Amino acid sequence: MPQHSPLDLAEGDPFGPHNLPYGVFTTSDEPQRRRVGVRYGAYVLDVHALAEAAGSAHAAVLSAGTLNPLLAAGRAIWSAVRAELVDALTDPARRVTVEPLLVPLADVALHLPFDVADYVDFYASEHHASNVGQIFRPNGDALTPNWKHLPIGYHGRAGTVVVSGTPVVRPAGQRKAPADAAPTFGPSQRLDIEAELGFVVGTPSTLGEPVPLDAFADHVFGVTLLNDWSARDIQAWEYVPLGPFLGKSFATSVSAWVTPLDALAHARTAPPRRDVPLLPYLDDSAAAEPGGFDIRLEVAINGHVVSRPPFSAMYWTAAQQLAHMTVNGASLRTGDLFASGTISGPRPEERGCLLELTWSGRDPVELPTGKRTFLEDGDEVTITAWAPGPDGVRVGLGEVTGKITGR
Amino acid sequence: MPQHSPLDLAEGDPFGPHNLPYGVFTTSDEPQRRRVGVRYGAYVLDVHALAEAAGSAHAAVLSAGTLNPLLAAGRAIWSAVRAELVDALTDPARRVTVEPLLVPLADVALHLPFDVADYVDFYASEHHASNVGQIFRPNGDALTPNWKHLPIGYHGRAGTVVVSGTPVVRPAGQRKAPADAAPTFGPSQRLDIEAELGFVVGTPSTLGEPVPLDAFADHVFGVTLLNDWSARDIQAWEYVPLGPFLGKSFATSVSAWVTPLDALAHARTAPPRRDVPLLPYLDDSAAAEPGGFDIRLEVAINGHVVSRPPFSAMYWTAAQQLAHMTVNGASLRTGDLFASGTISGPRPEERGCLLELTWSGRDPVELPTGKRTFLEDGDEVTITAWAPGPDGVRVGLGEVTGKITGR
Repeated sequence: MPQHSPLDLAEGDPFGPHNLPYGVFTTSDEPQRRRVGVRYGAYVLDVHALAEAAGSAHAAVLSAGTLNPLLAAGRAIWSAVRAELVDALTDPARRVTVEPLLVPLADVALHLPFDVADYVDFYASEHHASNVGQIFRPNGDALTPNWKHLPIGYHGRAGTVVVSGTPVVRPAGQRKAPADAAPTFGPSQRLDIEAELGFVVGTPSTLGEPVPLDAFADHVFGVTLLNDWSARDIQAWEYVPLGPFLGKSFATSVSAWVTPLDALAHARTAPPRRDVPLLPYLDDSAAAEPGGFDIRLEVAINGHVVSRPPFSAMYWTAAQQLAHMTVNGASLRTGDLFASGTISGPRPEERGCLLELTWSGRDPVELPTGKRTFLEDGDEVTITAWAPGPDGVRVGLGEVTGKITGR
Repeated sequence: MPQHSPLDLAEGDPFGPHNLPYGVFTTSDEPQRRRVGVRYGAYVLDVHALAEAAGSAHAAVLSAGTLNPLLAAGRAIWSAVRAELVDALTDPARRVTVEPLLVPLADVALHLPFDVADYVDFYASEHHASNVGQIFRPNGDALTPNWKHLPIGYHGRAGTVVVSGTPVVRPAGQRKAPADAAPTFGPSQRLDIEAELGFVVGTPSTLGEPVPLDAFADHVFGVTLLNDWSARDIQAWEYVPLGPFLGKSFATSVSAWVTPLDALAHARTAPPRRDVPLLPYLDDSAAAEPGGFDIRLEVAINGHVVSRPPFSAMYWTAAQQLAHMTVNGASLRTGDLFASGTISGPRPEERGCLLELTWSGRDPVELPTGKRTFLEDGDEVTITAWAPGPDGVRVGLGEVTGKITGR
C-alpha cells in the first residue's frame, strides 16, 4: 500500500493550491533559522528551498527570515512566485522534489511574518461605529458628521504588533468613571477584542504622491486576520481629544499567515450602497473590480463561538482606505499594515467586539465557562475566517489567537 | 604663521566638546557612504574613522550609516563613546590624528540620523492645549478633564519623518467649514507648524513591562528639534473621534543632529508646579533629578523670528511621557521617537504654532515678506534652539528647517 502523500489533500481543503498563504517558520532542530513558507493543507512548504531546488529566478526574495523582501518586490514578482508554487504543488512529475520540503504544521513554530513599518487602524464598519457612538456618546449622534465622507483612521503602535499565539498581558492604566472624582490606576477591568482584517503593503510609494483607488493591487500584497485588543476603560478616559493611545497600544495580534490578494479573487464583492456622494478620490462607483471582500469571520472565546462578523458589510473598502491614507502625500513603506477596524454586521450576533456584544457590559455573553462582560485572565480568544474560492472551495485565512495573562 | 586648526573654536562656540551632537553625513565624493559624525564647531568629525584609528572597543556600533547600533548599545556605551570623543578633541597630543577626520559642514550632506521605529506625539504645553482648546472648542472647557491627570499623546506616522531641509509638499485633503453643506477637496489653506522637541529612544524595553520615571536616562539617548507640520483645515474636519491623522501624517521634520542627554545636564530644571495630585507612576516630586529642560527655541519664517518658545514651561516632562507611554505594558524599540507637543509659553510671543500666534487667522503675523495667517508656498520655516551648558557656554541644538512646495 503506497504511503499517504502530504501533497494529497482532502477534497475542499481550504489550504490547497488555490490559497497558499505566506508565513515565517522555524523548526525545533534549527530554532534560529527563520524561513519563508506557504501553508499547504496541514503542512508548511519551505519556499526558499523549493526555489533553490527549482533554479527559480526569485529565490533571493524568498531567502530572508521575513516576508519583507518578497513584499518589496512588487506585483509582477508576487504573481510569478505564486505561479511557480502552484506549478510545483500540482505537477505530478515534481512530487519527488516537493514532498521532502513539506514540514508538518505540528512541527513548526510560526513567527511574525513581516517587519511592520507603520500600523494604521480604520473604523470602517457603519454598524460598529454606530453602536460605539451610541455607547460612548449617548447624548450625541451615533455617527460623527465626517463618518460617511471619509474613512476615519488613526495610527497605532507598530512595535507591539505580535503574532498569533503570543500571550497578551492585561494592561494597567488610568480610568475614571463619570461619577468618580479622580482617576484611579490599575489593571483594565474592561479588556476587549476587535475582530478585524489587516492589509499588508508591499510596494512603497513616493512622498508627496497619492496612491489612487485603482493602484490598490499594485501596492497591497495580502491580508491577515487581526485582533486589535482594546482596554475600554483606559480608552474612554484618554481618547478625547487626540484619539486612542494606551487603550490600544499594549498589543495587536495578527495571524501567522498572510493570504495573498490573488487568493481572494473569487471573494470580491460590491460594498454597501453609499449614502452620500463621495469626493472623486474616494468614488469607486466606476471601479473595474468591486472593492469589498466576502470574508466570513468567526470569533470564539475559550472555544465557544460568540460572533460571526461578515466583512462584506464594511462601508469603506481597503482600496478607499489606502487612497485616503495617501491623499495628503503621505508615503507607503514595505511592511505598512492597515487594519479595517472592527468588523460588525447588522445583526447582534455579527458584532466584532464585546463592547457591542454585551452593550458595554449590560448584557453578558453566556459561555460554557461562565458569563462574560469583558475578558477574564486565562480567557483565550480565537478569530478564524474563510472566503469563497474557485469551484466552491473555501479559502482559509487561518487564525489569530491570544490568551490573557494577569498582572 | 601656523594654519588655523578646525580644532580651535571661538570662545563660547555652542558646538564645542561640551555638546557633540550626533548625525549621519555623506560627502560629495562618496554620496552613497553614510557615516556617523558628531558636530564640532563648523565641522563634522567622522567618529567611526576616529574609533578605528584609536583602536576603540566601540568602533563597531559607529560603523553603520545610521545611529541605530549606537542607540541600541545602551547608556554605558553612550558614556564611554562620549568620553573617548571628548578626550580625542581636547588632547593636544592627538591633534594630528583628529584634524584630518574633520570635514567642513559646508562639504557634507546630512541625512535622517536614525531609523524611526514608532513615532508618538504628545500635547504637553498647558498654554498650547489651552489656546487650541479655546480655538477648536469655543463652547467647551479649554482643557479636557483628563489633561492634568495624564500626558495626552497619540501615534503619528513614522514613515514620513524627514530630515531638516527636506521640502514639504503642501498636503491636499478634505476640509469642511461649519457653514459648508459638504466637505470639499483641495490643497490645505491652513498649513501650520508646531515647534517641538523629539526624544530618541535607544535602549528597548520588554513587552508587558512598564518603564518607570527613574529609568528615563537608561532608555533615552538624546533630543532632536522637531517640526510637526499640521494642516489645520484637514485636522479640524477629521479628528473627531479618533484624533489627528492626515492633518499631520504628510511630514514631520527633525533636526539632523541628535543632542545627547549628557550634553543637557546643565539644562535640567524643575517643571511647573502641578495643579492636581498625580498617580504614583507619574509623580516626579521626589525625583533625584528635575524632569524639565531649560531649552530656548526660536521660530523664524523666511529668516524673520516670529516666536521664542521656552521648553521650560512644559507641564509634562519627557520622563513622565515615557512612563505613561509604557505603563500599559507597551514596549519600546530602538529608534522610537516621541515628541513633546507644541511648545508654547505663557506669553503671546512664545507660542509655537501659527494657529495660536494668529489666533486661528484672526491676527496675522507681520513679516518683511508680507502678512501671514498660515504658510504660503515658498515659505521657509526654521526652528533653532540652545540650552545652558557648563561655564555659561551654550549648547546648540542645531536647526530644523523646511520649505513649502506647492502642488
